[in-house]
Amino acid sequence: METVSTNMAFGGVQHVCRHAARSTGTDMTLSVYVPPHAPGARLPVVWYLSGLTCTHANVTEKGEYRRACAELGLIFVAPDTSPRGTEVPDDDAYDFGQGAGFYVDATVAPFDRHFRMWSYVTEELPELVAAHFPADMARQGIMGHSMGGHGALTIGLCHPERFRAISAFAPIVAPSQVPWGEKALSGYLGPDRAAWRRHDAVALIEDGARVDALKVDQGSGDAFLAEQLRPELLERACADAGIALSLGIRQGYDHSYYFISTFMADHLRWHAGRLNG
Amino acid sequence: METVSTNMAFGGVQHVCRHAARSTGTDMTLSVYVPPHAPGARLPVVWYLSGLTCTHANVTEKGEYRRACAELGLIFVAPDTSPRGTEVPDDDAYDFGQGAGFYVDATVAPFDRHFRMWSYVTEELPELVAAHFPADMARQGIMGHSMGGHGALTIGLCHPERFRAISAFAPIVAPSQVPWGEKALSGYLGPDRAAWRRHDAVALIEDGARVDALKVDQGSGDAFLAEQLRPELLERACADAGIALSLGIRQGYDHSYYFISTFMADHLRWHAGRLNG
Repeated sequence: METVSTNMAFGGVQHVCRHAARSTGTDMTLSVYVPPHAPGARLPVVWYLSGLTCTHANVTEKGEYRRACAELGLIFVAPDTSPRGTEVPDDDAYDFGQGAGFYVDATVAPFDRHFRMWSYVTEELPELVAAHFPADMARQGIMGHSMGGHGALTIGLCHPERFRAISAFAPIVAPSQVPWGEKALSGYLGPDRAAWRRHDAVALIEDGARVDALKVDQGSGDAFLAEQLRPELLERACADAGIALSLGIRQGYDHSYYFISTFMADHLRWHAGRLNG
Repeated sequence: METVSTNMAFGGVQHVCRHAARSTGTDMTLSVYVPPHAPGARLPVVWYLSGLTCTHANVTEKGEYRRACAELGLIFVAPDTSPRGTEVPDDDAYDFGQGAGFYVDATVAPFDRHFRMWSYVTEELPELVAAHFPADMARQGIMGHSMGGHGALTIGLCHPERFRAISAFAPIVAPSQVPWGEKALSGYLGPDRAAWRRHDAVALIEDGARVDALKVDQGSGDAFLAEQLRPELLERACADAGIALSLGIRQGYDHSYYFISTFMADHLRWHAGRLNG
C-alpha cells in the first residue's frame, strides 16, 4: 500500500492511499482518517460509500466528518466508487461505467473483469484496513450517499453480523424499481431480475434480510427524490419486517454535500453509540 | 447581483453570487453563508480572505465553517483572491497575477486597471453585503489564510474601528521581508518600499497601527513557515506595540485546509465573543 498523502487534522491523520487491488485488477485509491488515540488502542471503523461520479476525494474534502470522528474515536474509510483506468470499460453517461460501480460484482462482459466492487469493499478492503490501521474489526459500521447509500444498505443487510450500524444519506433504496438502478443492474448483472434482488435493499428485506435498525436522512428538496430514491419503499419494507427505520425527511435540503455535511455528525454519533455499546 | 447557487446547510443557506464589480472592472464571484436566524434579525459578519491560487470555492467546500457559524449566528463572506478573465493581465507563476491579488490596489501598469482588491474588499463588497444580506455592519470581523491572512491583518489594522476581531491562519505577516511578498508588492506597487508599508502587517504596527488583540494559528509542519510566513516577526512587533497576540503554533499541522478546518471553529468562537460582547 502506497501513501499518496498524509495530513494532520483534528488531532488525527487523514491518509490517502493507493494500492493494486486484486478484486478489480486496477490501482485503487482510498482515504482513511485515523483519529487521535492512545498507543496500542484498536478503534471502531465506519465505512463510507460514495455516490455516482464521486471518488474518495468528495467526502474527504466536503464531508466534514473529521471533527466528529476525532471526538468519537472512529476510523473513517472512504473507497472509490469503481475501478478506473484506460483499460477499464466505460460509458459516456455519468450513471454507468467508471464512477458508477454500484457496489456489485458484474457478471456481464466486458464489465465482469474489473467491476467487482462488492468483493473489493466486503473482502479485500477490510483485510487491507485491518492490516495497515489500528482498526477493531469486531466493531464496524457502514454508511453511504445515494448510490453509496444503496451500497451501505445492501452490504449491511447481507452482513448483519459484521456491521452493528448501517445508515445512509439519500440512498437508492430500491434500484430494481428506479431508472438509475435498472440501467446499472441490467448492465452489470444482466436481464434476470432475480439476480438483482440481493443488490436491492427493499428486495433483500422482502426476502428475509433482518437488522434491528437503520438510519436514513433524506432532503425534501432533493431533485432525485421522487424518481430515483423513493424512501417510502424502504419505509414500507421496514414496517412490514419489523426493522426500526429512523427516516428523517429534512425540509429544504438537496442531494449535495451541503446536506450530507449537515447531518454527518448525527450519523457518526449514532454509529459510535452502537459500536461502543 | 446574480445568484449562482443556493444550498441549505446547517439550517442556513450557503449562497454563491456573481456581480459586475466596479473596483476591478470584472465579474466577481463570492460565497455568503447566512445562518438560521429570527425574521428581521441583523447578524454579525466575518470576512474570510483566501490564499494564493484560491477562489471563493476552496473555503466554501473545505473550510468547515458552517456548523460553527450556524451555532454562533455569524454571516461568513468569502470573496475571490483577484480579478479574473481573459482581459485581465496574468502571469505564469501561481504567486502573481490571477489568483494572487494580495489585497492591494495596484499602481503599476498593466495591473493597475483591474487588480484593485483593497478597494473591492474594503469598499465595494461591504456595500453589497449590507444591501443584500441581513448583516449588522456595526459588528464585523475579518480572518484569512496565508496571502489572505496578510489581507485580513493589513485591512484589519487599517480599519480598527470597523473590525472588532482580526485573526489569521498561517498568514504572511511581513510581505516586505519574504519572497512571495517582495515579488507581489514590487509587481503591483513598484520598487518604492515606502509604498509597501501599509500592505505589511509588521510594518503597519511598527508605524503605529494599533488594535488590542490579534489571533493567529500556524502549523509547525507548514512548508512555507520559515521562508514566507515568519510569525516571529509579528510576535516581536506585537510585543513591542503592546498588542495581545494569541499565537498558536500547532504541532504537525501543514498549510492546507486540513489545518484551517481544524481550527476554524476556535477562530469563529473568538470572533463571536468579540462581536457579541
